Amino acid sequence: MKTPVNIAVTGAAGQISYSLLFRLAAGDFLGPDQPVNLSLLEIPPAMKTLSGIVMELSDCGFPLLRAVTTATEPETAFGDADYAFLIGAKPRKEGMLRSDLLLQNAEIFSSQGRALNAAAKREVKVLVTGNPANTNALIAIHNAPDLPASNFAAMTMLDHTRAVSQLAAKCAVSSAAITNVAVWGNHSCAQYPDLHHAKVNGAPALSLVDKAWYEEEFIPTVQYRGGEVIKARGSSSAGSAANAALQHMRALVLGTPAGDWASMALLSDGSYGVDADLVFSFPVQVTNGKIGVAQGLEINEFGHEFLLRNQRELREEREAIKHLL
Amino acid sequence: MKTPVNIAVTGAAGQISYSLLFRLAAGDFLGPDQPVNLSLLEIPPAMKTLSGIVMELSDCGFPLLRAVTTATEPETAFGDADYAFLIGAKPRKEGMLRSDLLLQNAEIFSSQGRALNAAAKREVKVLVTGNPANTNALIAIHNAPDLPASNFAAMTMLDHTRAVSQLAAKCAVSSAAITNVAVWGNHSCAQYPDLHHAKVNGAPALSLVDKAWYEEEFIPTVQYRGGEVIKARGSSSAGSAANAALQHMRALVLGTPAGDWASMALLSDGSYGVDADLVFSFPVQVTNGKIGVAQGLEINEFGHEFLLRNQRELREEREAIKHLL
Repeated sequence: MKTPVNIAVTGAAGQISYSLLFRLAAGDFLGPDQPVNLSLLEIPPAMKTLSGIVMELSDCGFPLLRAVTTATEPETAFGDADYAFLIGAKPRKEGMLRSDLLLQNAEIFSSQGRALNAAAKREVKVLVTGNPANTNALIAIHNAPDLPASNFAAMTMLDHTRAVSQLAAKCAVSSAAITNVAVWGNHSCAQYPDLHHAKVNGAPALSLVDKAWYEEEFIPTVQYRGGEVIKARGSSSAGSAANAALQHMRALVLGTPAGDWASMALLSDGSYGVDADLVFSFPVQVTNGKIGVAQGLEINEFGHEFLLRNQRELREEREAIKHLL
Repeated sequence: MKTPVNIAVTGAAGQISYSLLFRLAAGDFLGPDQPVNLSLLEIPPAMKTLSGIVMELSDCGFPLLRAVTTATEPETAFGDADYAFLIGAKPRKEGMLRSDLLLQNAEIFSSQGRALNAAAKREVKVLVTGNPANTNALIAIHNAPDLPASNFAAMTMLDHTRAVSQLAAKCAVSSAAITNVAVWGNHSCAQYPDLHHAKVNGAPALSLVDKAWYEEEFIPTVQYRGGEVIKARGSSSAGSAANAALQHMRALVLGTPAGDWASMALLSDGSYGVDADLVFSFPVQVTNGKIGVAQGLEINEFGHEFLLRNQRELREEREAIKHLL
């Protein structure tokens, strides 16, 4: 049996984590022969709820699940972490200013960045799903100077699979027939879900759907999907967000399929003219553990406008929290 | 690729189902090469929430997930079902009499039994988790006279894995080291979690733990675990119940390991002197798709008292709903 891997999850008593933890323990992340230790971070008022979740995890008798520990201190929770799912964040409340939301989250993620820097394994893979995810990830990166920035990402995988699923439904094919969808920019309604390189069973997607559908239906559907789910379900995406988090981390470990890519928000290396100090979603390839932005894609005028708009939005977010960088 | 199987889930907008559906769609039940159709039953007031869950399932782009349909009529939901997870039930509310709870649920499960009888595949496997699960299953069996009673079970798998997990923790071993735990009787606090045949790495469990622990700690911990989870988590077991439902159905499909068994509440065939017309949890073996009570186990005086107590409780439940049988 392999050595257990250490997986840290923040916001562990929340809804996304509730959908994630049982799947992590069941082997849905690293397969049926990889034991896992779970290290669960929460704020003190949520520790009682968390203790109930720990009871439930224990009640399942998962053969792969070794230690389950809980903590209220990030440095404890991230000790020797191989993987960190940063799920917890302050939600936006009625009447709250966007700048206040940014600031309150910025404090959480600067503290978590420092804790990862101090306590996690040097090769730890960190996925930020807590919103505003891109800028939270930027803060964590700045506060973890001893860890490679490429260890960090913000999650746009749910936007990616939403785009895949919308295109598959339109073309009446399985999602497995879709490749090379890309989501660019911020994990916000500004995001650019790009079908210019996408293929449906190998054929160019934009030769199969009309331009009006792509621009007027597909793009806003993907951009505003989170809000539509909240309207219908009465609470935000949890099961699908947990699934996307698993898919993101699996892509890091198993690699992306040859010729295809995933969407991940990484610290920009200047690719496609994006400012170097922004966490920006790109089409990303992972090969033999090496992660890199897919290069050489043509971006037309339409797409270029979207990239600039996302860059402006992310610059504004960065400006609001620059004292924490 | 295999032909998709049809999986019906009732109470599909509830918490247990929310933990179950994403795992069914991800292949956690029948593996990575078995496509699934999900047919989701809910009552009209829950259809909007359910529509949000359907959006989320779609958003995941699960390659194995084919059709997802919703219905408010059981006969529609169970059409050609291969598997039916009967999760929805009326919960007990403050001040509600147990007899009222039994009656209201009895009506649900008689209607669902008739619908399964009319519409499901003849080999459909039906798992009742909605409480009072044993008697609900009995009602469904009586209302589905054209289906073999052995197609139906009430879930005691969560009690079983709770027992395994408690014993594993006590002996400081992995749950994989534990075999031959049995849960007898009703899925209620009367249940008998039996370690007299259990083994820890092949050694008799009761040679490794003392009698006082077994009788005064282990048994009540397993019996009252559901309530303890509610106290801690603020809501009833969902992730662990969904996991147990998957394990139950997997045991039916893949069989139980040689020499071991699972706990399942089946229509009694008179084994161990239990009344023939009760749904009673036994140690159950599944070999080549054939399901049968593990025979020849010695039941001592201590255990016999438990079996009688469970039989009395289940007779009383049956008496309260006998007009629906």
